[in-house]
Amino acid sequence: MITTTPEQLLASLRWRYATKKFDPTQIISSEVWAALEQSLVLTPSSFGLQPWKFLVITDPGVRANLLTQSWGQPQVTEASHYVVLATRTDLEAKDIEDWIACMGDIQQTPAASLAGFKGVIEGFVQRMSTETRAAWNVKQAYIALGQLMTSAALLGVDACPMEGISPAGYDEVLKLENSGYATAVACALGYRSAEDKYATIPKARFDASRVIQHI
Amino acid sequence: MITTTPEQLLASLRWRYATKKFDPTQIISSEVWAALEQSLVLTPSSFGLQPWKFLVITDPGVRANLLTQSWGQPQVTEASHYVVLATRTDLEAKDIEDWIACMGDIQQTPAASLAGFKGVIEGFVQRMSTETRAAWNVKQAYIALGQLMTSAALLGVDACPMEGISPAGYDEVLKLENSGYATAVACALGYRSAEDKYATIPKARFDASRVIQHI
Repeated sequence: MITTTPEQLLASLRWRYATKKFDPTQIISSEVWAALEQSLVLTPSSFGLQPWKFLVITDPGVRANLLTQSWGQPQVTEASHYVVLATRTDLEAKDIEDWIACMGDIQQTPAASLAGFKGVIEGFVQRMSTETRAAWNVKQAYIALGQLMTSAALLGVDACPMEGISPAGYDEVLKLENSGYATAVACALGYRSAEDKYATIPKARFDASRVIQHI
Repeated sequence: MITTTPEQLLASLRWRYATKKFDPTQIISSEVWAALEQSLVLTPSSFGLQPWKFLVITDPGVRANLLTQSWGQPQVTEASHYVVLATRTDLEAKDIEDWIACMGDIQQTPAASLAGFKGVIEGFVQRMSTETRAAWNVKQAYIALGQLMTSAALLGVDACPMEGISPAGYDEVLKLENSGYATAVACALGYRSAEDKYATIPKARFDASRVIQHI
């Protein structure tokens, strides 16, 4: 199934940029937002484990509190929508059991048929330290961040990935401490302000000859 | 700029799955492959640093050697195209200087005007340990992986993210040792075989109520 041409894809990827100034009066429609939430839900992850929660921050007070943990970057409060991508601080037996149960349910497969797959996941996960498992979960969230930004670009929605934040500060504001989840990264989404000077600066990337190598 | 409707986007994201069996006779056209390479080149990264190289493995002998470092997963040799995403093992002064020079060139901005931005990057990078910088670079590669898989889905290209590999084994096969780059993750791309039973299994994801939370 093909829904986009190479030209359309590249036009969208060139159109996007890390939006610094959003127009706070322009709100993403509920139909488009629902699609972006689904792009998060549908993100691929290792073994399908989906070790994440996507927190959509609507409350203006919470947004204002996050702003103080984001070096004052105005995207936090001015963007139409603001998502915090949080990941599991570990992977435990229950995480794997929940996922196997979910698969079994949706694919109408008896637990016994999934026992082999479950064992593979368990083996893979048990060989890691808690720290490595947490870091692995964070990497999965960056797949979601990539899928979200690409999806947004195709739908004409501006986005700004937010790494310049205090994850510990976010965890405190969002009461994630001791929840089993921690802030990995965030993303502001909405529509660029006509005043964002970054919108018209030529996109800078290393030449393909530096970053692509054929072997 | 809008190039895709919410319905089209979601249809593509539901169509995609981690392809286990590719049809080795179906090759991605050069036009579509060029767009996928550009989607890698255009991937957003923190501060724009692009701490990566994307190795497109064409040589059948190298593919065969990588197969032995991939638990024998047939995607490595059967997929039309195979990309190894490698990232910098550190971030040094030269990485930042190269990026600032690239920006200055493309955006026709004198170095003096970029000195402030350069200082911000340097401060951010210097606060991290070498290990944290390497891990940070790997996270950026997962944005590229996300953008690549989403782009592929929209273009009707099948993909399989490859985490079940030996990064150290890949580094040896690809002679990355002491190059300043190391294997982060890989991705097989091509077209699904009619025999891939995974193509028709219902897609399993946790319910949105578990992974999306409105605050």
